[in-house]
Amino acid sequence: MSQQRSTPDPALTTLVGLAAYTELAAFGLLAARSVDAPDLAARQTLATAAGESLDRQQRLLGLTATGAGGAAAAMAPFDGVLADFDARTVPSGWAEGLLKSVVGLGVAQDLCRELAAGLPAGATAFVAAVGEPRRDDPATAVLAAAAAADGVLAARLALWGRRVVGEALGLVPVLLAAHPPLAALAARAREVADEGGASAQAWLVSRLTAEHTRRMDRLGLAA
Amino acid sequence: MSQQRSTPDPALTTLVGLAAYTELAAFGLLAARSVDAPDLAARQTLATAAGESLDRQQRLLGLTATGAGGAAAAMAPFDGVLADFDARTVPSGWAEGLLKSVVGLGVAQDLCRELAAGLPAGATAFVAAVGEPRRDDPATAVLAAAAAADGVLAARLALWGRRVVGEALGLVPVLLAAHPPLAALAARAREVADEGGASAQAWLVSRLTAEHTRRMDRLGLAA
Repeated sequence: MSQQRSTPDPALTTLVGLAAYTELAAFGLLAARSVDAPDLAARQTLATAAGESLDRQQRLLGLTATGAGGAAAAMAPFDGVLADFDARTVPSGWAEGLLKSVVGLGVAQDLCRELAAGLPAGATAFVAAVGEPRRDDPATAVLAAAAAADGVLAARLALWGRRVVGEALGLVPVLLAAHPPLAALAARAREVADEGGASAQAWLVSRLTAEHTRRMDRLGLAA
Repeated sequence: MSQQRSTPDPALTTLVGLAAYTELAAFGLLAARSVDAPDLAARQTLATAAGESLDRQQRLLGLTATGAGGAAAAMAPFDGVLADFDARTVPSGWAEGLLKSVVGLGVAQDLCRELAAGLPAGATAFVAAVGEPRRDDPATAVLAAAAAADGVLAARLALWGRRVVGEALGLVPVLLAAHPPLAALAARAREVADEGGASAQAWLVSRLTAEHTRRMDRLGLAA
């Protein structure tokens, strides 16, 4: 019983549900950018990236052992949570759509990794399922190449990246308020990190913002 | 050298390119129907089905050992081959879009299996990569359930299925004319089948039509 004291079992279930739902959403965004990719190589690369989101999703869902029929049940509490985000970030064209998927999935994965640090058993199994941030992410490489070839596009994407990350970070307080197990994980993760001062929510957003800056650096875009 | 006599090596390369390209196209169609699925369970099921198309594609591409950069090269001869088909089969709504993906992918897989029978080394490795037709295909199950619940929809889908299969079968002579290795495979496959009379093309279309009738039966739709 003692290992259930600081965080209840539902914390892992809830976190897996959030992570699995956002990987499914990323699958949809990446697949759509595969369909309208400018050439066959990019189409293949983004299809593969979309498939990797599904693979991560399956590993994540395996953590809570909910069985074949349990995937939808695990994600159900988050169904529709991205509707406002999507409505506020309708991309103009393929590159903006791809940046939305890279930034949106990146923030979601970072959020889940940070929250996992608050799990009673630690983040190891969760992070093994979702993976570390990849320096050689294929979608990032495709987008970086497009931006490097077109300065006007790069400037537009830099602005767009700020818009998307702002909307994504705006979801953090919404998620924590609606899902108390996630708020408990955030509080515990901040304790573990021992970085003092700020509220758990402010601490989380500052961590996500810092990681977003590194992401935009990898894309060759101004954060 | 003797194993290369009846069909040149390019036959397998060409067939793998066609099969891999159509699996990529099916991935896009299924992923799009995942994104606009009516509920989370269907969204998950169709995402998984799209991922299975990518898995088959990777197994197929592995047969010709073209390496990581070779996928686009293998598929390049077929890039754009479905543009007319897509233009002539713009679906009205989600269920028609899903039936298009089920019928289009089904005909493409059937075509590739039939042609594989003409390979000098036989169809075994190819069919192992693409798999046998599945009776429990998840996209088929989702669509069959939707049709069973709505007689008006089922009648509309039956008509739509005839339109889609007609356009898909119309691609067969185009493909055989544009890709001599495929025409040679068709001629050899007909010899192997030893079913006499008809031209290789007519024989192929009759085989594909028969399999389509079984597919529509599995969907609970009039062929």
